[in-house]
Amino acid sequence: MSAPSPPDPPAAPSLPPPYPDLAARVNNWGRWGADDEIGTLNLITDTVVRVAAATVRTGLRVPLALPLRQDGVQSGAIPGRVNPLHTMVQINRRLFGPDSVATSDDTVTMGLQAATHWDALPHASHSGLLYNGRPADTITAHGGARFSSIATATHVVSRGVLLDVAAAKGLPRLTTGHAVTPEDLDGAEEFGGVTVGAGDIVLVRTGQLQVYLAGDRAAYAYPSPGLSVRTPEWFHARDVAAVANDTLTFEICPPEIENLWLPVHALDLVEMGMPQGQNWNLEDLSTACGETGRYAFLLSATPEPFLGATGSPVAPVAIL
Amino acid sequence: MSAPSPPDPPAAPSLPPPYPDLAARVNNWGRWGADDEIGTLNLITDTVVRVAAATVRTGLRVPLALPLRQDGVQSGAIPGRVNPLHTMVQINRRLFGPDSVATSDDTVTMGLQAATHWDALPHASHSGLLYNGRPADTITAHGGARFSSIATATHVVSRGVLLDVAAAKGLPRLTTGHAVTPEDLDGAEEFGGVTVGAGDIVLVRTGQLQVYLAGDRAAYAYPSPGLSVRTPEWFHARDVAAVANDTLTFEICPPEIENLWLPVHALDLVEMGMPQGQNWNLEDLSTACGETGRYAFLLSATPEPFLGATGSPVAPVAIL
Amino acid sequence: MSAPSPPDPPAAPSLPPPYPDLAARVNNWGRWGADDEIGTLNLITDTVVRVAAATVRTGLRVPLALPLRQDGVQSGAIPGRVNPLHTMVQINRRLFGPDSVATSDDTVTMGLQAATHWDALPHASHSGLLYNGRPADTITAHGGARFSSIATATHVVSRGVLLDVAAAKGLPRLTTGHAVTPEDLDGAEEFGGVTVGAGDIVLVRTGQLQVYLAGDRAAYAYPSPGLSVRTPEWFHARDVAAVANDTLTFEICPPEIENLWLPVHALDLVEMGMPQGQNWNLEDLSTACGETGRYAFLLSATPEPFLGATGSPVAPVAIL
Amino acid sequence: MSAPSPPDPPAAPSLPPPYPDLAARVNNWGRWGADDEIGTLNLITDTVVRVAAATVRTGLRVPLALPLRQDGVQSGAIPGRVNPLHTMVQINRRLFGPDSVATSDDTVTMGLQAATHWDALPHASHSGLLYNGRPADTITAHGGARFSSIATATHVVSRGVLLDVAAAKGLPRLTTGHAVTPEDLDGAEEFGGVTVGAGDIVLVRTGQLQVYLAGDRAAYAYPSPGLSVRTPEWFHARDVAAVANDTLTFEICPPEIENLWLPVHALDLVEMGMPQGQNWNLEDLSTACGETGRYAFLLSATPEPFLGATGSPVAPVAIL
Repeated sequence: MSAPSPPDPPAAPSLPPPYPDLAARVNNWGRWGADDEIGTLNLITDTVVRVAAATVRTGLRVPLALPLRQDGVQSGAIPGRVNPLHTMVQINRRLFGPDSVATSDDTVTMGLQAATHWDALPHASHSGLLYNGRPADTITAHGGARFSSIATATHVVSRGVLLDVAAAKGLPRLTTGHAVTPEDLDGAEEFGGVTVGAGDIVLVRTGQLQVYLAGDRAAYAYPSPGLSVRTPEWFHARDVAAVANDTLTFEICPPEIENLWLPVHALDLVEMGMPQGQNWNLEDLSTACGETGRYAFLLSATPEPFLGATGSPVAPVAIL
Repeated sequence: MSAPSPPDPPAAPSLPPPYPDLAARVNNWGRWGADDEIGTLNLITDTVVRVAAATVRTGLRVPLALPLRQDGVQSGAIPGRVNPLHTMVQINRRLFGPDSVATSDDTVTMGLQAATHWDALPHASHSGLLYNGRPADTITAHGGARFSSIATATHVVSRGVLLDVAAAKGLPRLTTGHAVTPEDLDGAEEFGGVTVGAGDIVLVRTGQLQVYLAGDRAAYAYPSPGLSVRTPEWFHARDVAAVANDTLTFEICPPEIENLWLPVHALDLVEMGMPQGQNWNLEDLSTACGETGRYAFLLSATPEPFLGATGSPVAPVAIL
Repeated sequence: MSAPSPPDPPAAPSLPPPYPDLAARVNNWGRWGADDEIGTLNLITDTVVRVAAATVRTGLRVPLALPLRQDGVQSGAIPGRVNPLHTMVQINRRLFGPDSVATSDDTVTMGLQAATHWDALPHASHSGLLYNGRPADTITAHGGARFSSIATATHVVSRGVLLDVAAAKGLPRLTTGHAVTPEDLDGAEEFGGVTVGAGDIVLVRTGQLQVYLAGDRAAYAYPSPGLSVRTPEWFHARDVAAVANDTLTFEICPPEIENLWLPVHALDLVEMGMPQGQNWNLEDLSTACGETGRYAFLLSATPEPFLGATGSPVAPVAIL
Repeated sequence: MSAPSPPDPPAAPSLPPPYPDLAARVNNWGRWGADDEIGTLNLITDTVVRVAAATVRTGLRVPLALPLRQDGVQSGAIPGRVNPLHTMVQINRRLFGPDSVATSDDTVTMGLQAATHWDALPHASHSGLLYNGRPADTITAHGGARFSSIATATHVVSRGVLLDVAAAKGLPRLTTGHAVTPEDLDGAEEFGGVTVGAGDIVLVRTGQLQVYLAGDRAAYAYPSPGLSVRTPEWFHARDVAAVANDTLTFEICPPEIENLWLPVHALDLVEMGMPQGQNWNLEDLSTACGETGRYAFLLSATPEPFLGATGSPVAPVAIL
């Protein structure tokens, strides 16, 4: 059997300028073969993981997930993205007689992108195409995403780096309209005394999650600071494996360029094939890194392997 | 403010002999204070984690979760424990115009104990009591478990040890009626050249999951090999933090002692306060450990923080 | 086998005055036997139904249900009472080949009391008791309500009577703080030229639903006009089978008597054993009855038979 | 504004013979205008309803729905069509203090076609088209069916006619391979002393539901007796409004014509625009009609108005 042919060169995208130029500079289609489904997660090599494990100094573990609860971050503005509805289907039920051991069981209904989560690559498409040039209509109601579903991200463990943009600027949190630029990322690297490298998972802290933690989920959601359309190129240059932050929209919203909505989603997920994380709680991590002066750590953040899903809740832990 | 008083000594349990004697030998109530909610997870200290990180040699990562899918391991025999129902609520939806970036979104409904999961401590009760002597009726329909819910297990990262009981016996899998004994665990330790210690997470391989992987989920579920009622004492003696295996019922089922159903659940969860994991896929890990001859590794297995839940799916990863 | 003994006389309720006096006047426990589960639905006899069918003059059918949709009447204020989440699990799927017939399938997750619905009798309890003196703890997480669940209301078809309180007062809708009194019901009877009789299903229109229809679901929900604590006696005197209205809370909310919340729920559901309906859209019916001058009709309003449920969505139709 | 132009003549369907000929004979596209969404439900006129109400003799009500429960008729063979999962989200919760009235609340997750239900017209498509020539891709993951969703069937009340094919043949139930033919329907009409007319809702009894009621849901589902591909023409000739029966598949399954699966679905739903009902319990109705010798009655069977849904559970009641 012959090797699969490489994907066709990407069609000229139908998105407006400057999207096509930005896309051309970060596109990874075919880089790991025509059959590749995991994109930049390929950059997490065994060597990277060994180095990551070696960063552990104190053994302190910092959890980065918000609790999964019905009054979670979703305000109802995104149809179908429902906060977790937790129900008990057994409470102390003694199935084997009045003096037997009792058990309790639970169910949940939730949007997979509702809480602290990873976007899988097919979460975004444009011009009818997904990462690696696959047709967008390979996502169906009965099977979900045939390619690059979150279930292909079977082990997301690497070196994590906190780029604490808010702290680097001496702010508790960025202002609503602030687009995080490559220069901001440079500044946060310098602030943290750390250099982002190949296979790293980068956590960008804006401080915006404080707005939710203070009780205002509508204001948390929108408008929101977030990553600039110029950041994918920065991540691409360093061969980052994945990026997560502490906002609902990931990128600045409303967008920097009129009528070009969600360009960072398209650049990261579709062109680069790089997973994105949202609604991560980076507050305790900011404190811990600030106290130790160390901004690199082992990060374990494997999503739940929902077959066909375009995202998943995740309970990330930083190990310092 | 004065310290909370220690919990009352456990009431004489209403379960039949030999349960009361076994319980007395492993009970941890009050050991970490009257307010403790996490039981043996307290044994995962920073030191344990540092040592665990230092076990990483190759950087190889082995995922231990089954894919989350509608034809998962549940056969319908346990009411309410439904396999994951994954649905798409947006498919390539262009919210911002015909040539805009499109997004896809998912939801899920599932039993939290349906797939590869952790049991939280309140998953079991007996004689009206939960771990640390709390009343079982603190679990309610509207809030779930008030104490020790899975959301309190915010970071489950430690040294993992595979006790490959099937391989130690030279069998592909244990026979249906085989109760894994302390002697079997000793034998697997010796086979693996490893000594289980305080704070370790022990993975006990029976090979039973092969029955599900071969397509027969009814036979996988029941009858099943599993842990003997004598094993909690073994885990207690070594101060293990948690135990998981590759069966649906965790313990041998039907049970060893007539009319004493789920005794291991009660001993582990209620008396010791030790989380249990079920439906873990240990097949690839068995191969990897067999090839390297090393049966200890860094294990990352943090559950999703469902507030009030008595269990959660988990996507564990062993890092060798 | 001997006949079941009649239920004990109701325990002195622990609710504050004037509840005990009101309860004593409307209590129906034992009226239809100790085993009865359906309360006032017993009053819908075959004769009542024949008479109801004979009220049909024009054949006009007026639907009274709100569409089931994610932006339904629930605002999130009542935990767990979630608006319908509709998902497609198959879209034009051709299971039998490329040129075969295709099918589409749906699922829903919703609160059973979230939309236009009936409350089953066990939806309310007080002093540890349900209708007919049954213990409230016969409702469990794994089975729901053992007695009087909505599945026992297998056919709710009777004469319907619209008491258009708002129209009788010449108002588009009642003011927020208006408690509908027995005198208001008398006035609406006179306005409609109709006399409420045994087995009737009474629909009380306040006009409050207009607030939701105009787009403000928070203001629709609370504060709300609704039935006074004095109305159950009025319904009891006429041997009404069931009552529904066009509010979220059914009764006036906040309540008329300080610290006595939901007294009408307790009087109707627990004491009388009379089902209640909420969030019914009576706007078109008000118009139709106003135009024809006839306020009695055949009403078909059978809930979905959810086993163990304490309520159900319903799609009522008035046939004039 | 000009009237909408009539739909294009249907494209030559891509389904194999004899489908195109059968389709041409029953097609109703354009019959009620290009904008029509409800098809043969248009045939239920006010006059039909008046006549239907006049059929009521005794006032006896016979419910035709199966209870909604987790061990319902679905065996798991149809992916995503899940039996109802009923959960309690509040049990006797006293929100307003220890001596206040308590309430209980429920949620459900279920397939809308899982139990006793109506198929809406867009439940089936072929050759890329739905009823009235609308494109099949007007069904989307985020909105469901844009046209002819079940929410457009706001009042389904008409004369019901039981065609008791099994009883007419002197059988408890039809054999598995029996396709109900037009001649069978003629025979059942004669047996019942009734003539099917315009606007009637026809209930065809095979007796197959007894297999489920006896506990074997796999055998109930498949293979199954059901309607022959020749019956749509019979219904079309009489201008029937809707047809329901007591099987899972509605039509005979496996089908009469090799490689032509679900032809009756396509003829009824797509060509004629006639709703179909499945899993109706006609056993008690068979008894009641047999005892009274009257096979026509008032039937009330309005589905729940799920916006965008291609089906809905229904709790039909026959009023004799």
